[in-house]
Amino acid sequence: MPKRVRHIELKSGMRVDELAEEMGKSGVFSAGRVAKAVETYREMLKAGSTIFMGVGGAVVPGGLRLVLTQAINEELADALVVTGANATHDLIEAFGGYHMRGEAMVDDVKLRRLGVSRIFDVYVPQRVFEIFEDRIQPMFAKVAKEGSKMSSAELLRRIGSRITDKNSFLKAAADKGVPVFCPAVADSILGLQAWLYSQEHELVIDVLQDVREMVELASNAIRPGAILLGGGVPKNFIFQSMLLAPRSFDYAIQITMDRPEHGGLSGATLEEAKSWGKVAKNAKIVTVIGDATVVFPIILAAVMKKA
Amino acid sequence: MPKRVRHIELKSGMRVDELAEEMGKSGVFSAGRVAKAVETYREMLKAGSTIFMGVGGAVVPGGLRLVLTQAINEELADALVVTGANATHDLIEAFGGYHMRGEAMVDDVKLRRLGVSRIFDVYVPQRVFEIFEDRIQPMFAKVAKEGSKMSSAELLRRIGSRITDKNSFLKAAADKGVPVFCPAVADSILGLQAWLYSQEHELVIDVLQDVREMVELASNAIRPGAILLGGGVPKNFIFQSMLLAPRSFDYAIQITMDRPEHGGLSGATLEEAKSWGKVAKNAKIVTVIGDATVVFPIILAAVMKKA
Amino acid sequence: MPKRVRHIELKSGMRVDELAEEMGKSGVFSAGRVAKAVETYREMLKAGSTIFMGVGGAVVPGGLRLVLTQAINEELADALVVTGANATHDLIEAFGGYHMRGEAMVDDVKLRRLGVSRIFDVYVPQRVFEIFEDRIQPMFAKVAKEGSKMSSAELLRRIGSRITDKNSFLKAAADKGVPVFCPAVADSILGLQAWLYSQEHELVIDVLQDVREMVELASNAIRPGAILLGGGVPKNFIFQSMLLAPRSFDYAIQITMDRPEHGGLSGATLEEAKSWGKVAKNAKIVTVIGDATVVFPIILAAVMKKA
Amino acid sequence: MPKRVRHIELKSGMRVDELAEEMGKSGVFSAGRVAKAVETYREMLKAGSTIFMGVGGAVVPGGLRLVLTQAINEELADALVVTGANATHDLIEAFGGYHMRGEAMVDDVKLRRLGVSRIFDVYVPQRVFEIFEDRIQPMFAKVAKEGSKMSSAELLRRIGSRITDKNSFLKAAADKGVPVFCPAVADSILGLQAWLYSQEHELVIDVLQDVREMVELASNAIRPGAILLGGGVPKNFIFQSMLLAPRSFDYAIQITMDRPEHGGLSGATLEEAKSWGKVAKNAKIVTVIGDATVVFPIILAAVMKKA
Repeated sequence: MPKRVRHIELKSGMRVDELAEEMGKSGVFSAGRVAKAVETYREMLKAGSTIFMGVGGAVVPGGLRLVLTQAINEELADALVVTGANATHDLIEAFGGYHMRGEAMVDDVKLRRLGVSRIFDVYVPQRVFEIFEDRIQPMFAKVAKEGSKMSSAELLRRIGSRITDKNSFLKAAADKGVPVFCPAVADSILGLQAWLYSQEHELVIDVLQDVREMVELASNAIRPGAILLGGGVPKNFIFQSMLLAPRSFDYAIQITMDRPEHGGLSGATLEEAKSWGKVAKNAKIVTVIGDATVVFPIILAAVMKKA
Repeated sequence: MPKRVRHIELKSGMRVDELAEEMGKSGVFSAGRVAKAVETYREMLKAGSTIFMGVGGAVVPGGLRLVLTQAINEELADALVVTGANATHDLIEAFGGYHMRGEAMVDDVKLRRLGVSRIFDVYVPQRVFEIFEDRIQPMFAKVAKEGSKMSSAELLRRIGSRITDKNSFLKAAADKGVPVFCPAVADSILGLQAWLYSQEHELVIDVLQDVREMVELASNAIRPGAILLGGGVPKNFIFQSMLLAPRSFDYAIQITMDRPEHGGLSGATLEEAKSWGKVAKNAKIVTVIGDATVVFPIILAAVMKKA
Repeated sequence: MPKRVRHIELKSGMRVDELAEEMGKSGVFSAGRVAKAVETYREMLKAGSTIFMGVGGAVVPGGLRLVLTQAINEELADALVVTGANATHDLIEAFGGYHMRGEAMVDDVKLRRLGVSRIFDVYVPQRVFEIFEDRIQPMFAKVAKEGSKMSSAELLRRIGSRITDKNSFLKAAADKGVPVFCPAVADSILGLQAWLYSQEHELVIDVLQDVREMVELASNAIRPGAILLGGGVPKNFIFQSMLLAPRSFDYAIQITMDRPEHGGLSGATLEEAKSWGKVAKNAKIVTVIGDATVVFPIILAAVMKKA
Repeated sequence: MPKRVRHIELKSGMRVDELAEEMGKSGVFSAGRVAKAVETYREMLKAGSTIFMGVGGAVVPGGLRLVLTQAINEELADALVVTGANATHDLIEAFGGYHMRGEAMVDDVKLRRLGVSRIFDVYVPQRVFEIFEDRIQPMFAKVAKEGSKMSSAELLRRIGSRITDKNSFLKAAADKGVPVFCPAVADSILGLQAWLYSQEHELVIDVLQDVREMVELASNAIRPGAILLGGGVPKNFIFQSMLLAPRSFDYAIQITMDRPEHGGLSGATLEEAKSWGKVAKNAKIVTVIGDATVVFPIILAAVMKKA
């Protein structure tokens, strides 16, 4: 039975969860989808879902590092799949490095001369990569002592457990026993450093081991749910795990700027995932077209309120 | 002097303005831009700016009708430029019609058979267009008594002043003396109805008169500011007014999903507008790539808090 | 019965229509849609369709001026609906002005100082707007002698018939008897000039008259087809004409970068138009997500081959 | 010295390279960028560039399989970096499987019931995955005999050299000695199959070895050039290789629908890559916003003409 669109009403000093509720009264366009994402997330938590969070792109240098840490600490995520960039930039800050606010329209040749690398409007001084190298190389040595062949998840667990910075999502995950997969780790500065280490020492990142661990998690999951910030490897790796598991996702939320028309998995609809059996036929699903740095904090702040 | 990216920190029960402040601490990616939009809007209000608000697309059926009304009533906008669709759908509700929540992926031929027209995931029963016709035709007759040739802004002022529904943004604008321009009014169902009326009666919508009124407003504006929800005619009409005025916009906020690469004005950067003299060289400007139904309520709720 | 995806095969020196055919062998993703657009256009021509072409954005300064002229001269379009920008920039060149190749990432304040206005990577020297003013003002005087109140289509017909530049699409249209509607003409530099003229002289652009002429055309159309370059007013004006006509579009091709999620008509699917009765339930429709300056020349070159 | 925008002129029966030349006469908007991509590719070939081609998304099921094979056979690419999906779907066809043309708007639950998986508008019958499994498992056994630990590039070389289907890009690459990297191979059905094999047999895909091979290639490259179809791991892996090489890309062409605003590497500008030293400060670079299935065949057909 269709409902009327009621219009969003604002109030001075309103809370984020109240705004999400107003968006739910409307129920349409992207505002309606943000509200549905909040509702879906709450349902997952109520159902005791095993929640797989995919973290694409470079949201850690973009200001969401602590939000991921909070999501882990508040038990709003049970496993993460991340890009190498997000792991690298978490470690950069954990090792005393930092990111600077810059400009997106700028002379990049001049930045190069100044020793600054750019990620949209974030500036990364080359210096922090030197700090990163100085700190990660001895870390690899320690890590390899527990065995020189490991999955990316095991690598990140071992690294995370050695970090002291409580704002690090890798530390939070290690502390909470939340696995963090990074199946494309070779495709990142962390991966380049791992290769440098491996030139002189024994170190193998066994990504098929990641597949095993992920399929196990997926197989043991309860009412599994996926929360996808961006697409890329994190989205696909989470979804493909269900191809070998006896179940499929009962919930899925994706926040993305990607679209389906060019056929890449990043922009694929969640409906499409049903044809593969990755998402259950009666699953509760919602796609929000938007930037994760805006949309995810709204959703999480609203969920934290009622959690 | 560049600042560090500090990371967004969420709190259970936090207010929208607090979230915007956290986004401002980060200052980067889209979250940083939402925060900058809030800051820019507050500055405009403090500076006593004459604020021109462009309302593209079909945000009124999409749940933002009351938000526009609130913006007018709280004196957060001094002039509006809207699409014919937004005017039409405001009137539909003012006349007792309504919009329904539907589905975006649906059999449109079946909807047609059921007498339902679709706007993304909003359903509009054909019946409400009949109500609209029944009510707007006598309205035109009354309106034309004050003179049969008028600008679109004058038409909407005369209509707005005859409406009793306090949720109508056209009524709020008429009551507050806020002009609402609709220079492409012929390109809407309101325009089709106007033409039907004009077949038997004298009625001319003189859009060059709109240009005159807009250029006058622009010429008399104080520290003018533009807030653009989407692009299209509203954006261009607001900006072009400065080509004939002795000043240019000191502030501009645009919220859009359009991009510059195909050269249309809708997706053009605010920097580009500086080359035309539409936006001042030192203007405070910010573009947020996102859906207005999500982004604008955040910004407005945050601004209302401190206003 | 589904067909296999056969793969595109390239040949040295292949023709555009051969490439389109290869894309049709594949039949999927955007390449498949380009091929379907070619096939649909050919079918329209074979069926003797009345073809309505919507020309949004600013494709005339962007290099498609002559392509529009060719489409008119080769009888591939029977009516046009254009933005004011496209009409203005056609006239700028007809009056001896020109557009320059520039850069999209540039210092716009410096351009302003140099007297250059920017449209993405096109530079428009201010000088050409002076030429435009010098030439269009006496043109209005001549045009108004045939009657001071006219539709936008009548205005453009009268102007087009006075142009000598054979590359002008407005001239070609006037010569061929192809009407060119510009219902949002007030929203353009042509509109600003019209207003300037109207301050001292009698001139009314009666856009309700455009509605009448368009509804008549739509009512008399044979197997009507729509070809939409971009969205905006041109798309909506073409489609809304069918709300008052006893038929609907049997064919529709849209080439756009806009998407449906934020609910604007520009990005709406052609399926959605079926729910309104704008497009027939069995219509042959195809949407290509892409820039019109790339996609439309491919389609037209392929169609011209077999036409 | 800026040039005038000359307008694209079409001819009946014109060749693709002639169309590209017309686009170059205009030089602006996306058409201008397609022309610049053609010019840049030709320059690369003339300069004897080592060309790295990144193949993101799922363009192989989308009709570009043979185009990749042609690019390799015509020596238009010297190394490829691909997603696991592109490798998997090449092998599916090599093993006698196929892809079907389907619909993008469809009931995915019904497809699931029918045993059909969907990739936008491509249908993949589950049956072909069974064929894939039947054929790839014994292939792994053969491959592992040459050594059970290998890079993804070595894996794909060994597989490619055992394929007989001359349309396979993996076979063409193996035959031509063109390495094909797939650093995120675990994130694909090929990876899932590799893991299944590894449960009972010794098999390790050593992605750090891929880093070594890629850095070597990058270090020995002559006037290196990058051609990027989509973003994702292929783009980043190609670019990051230059962080450890004594040079940077002198040429780069990217064809993508991704945008920079949300900070992901996929949508990052090629200018940004200069700040990292991945792209040389004086490099010839061009980004075309568009679907690779449309844009890349145009560029390649035009390049083949003059090559």
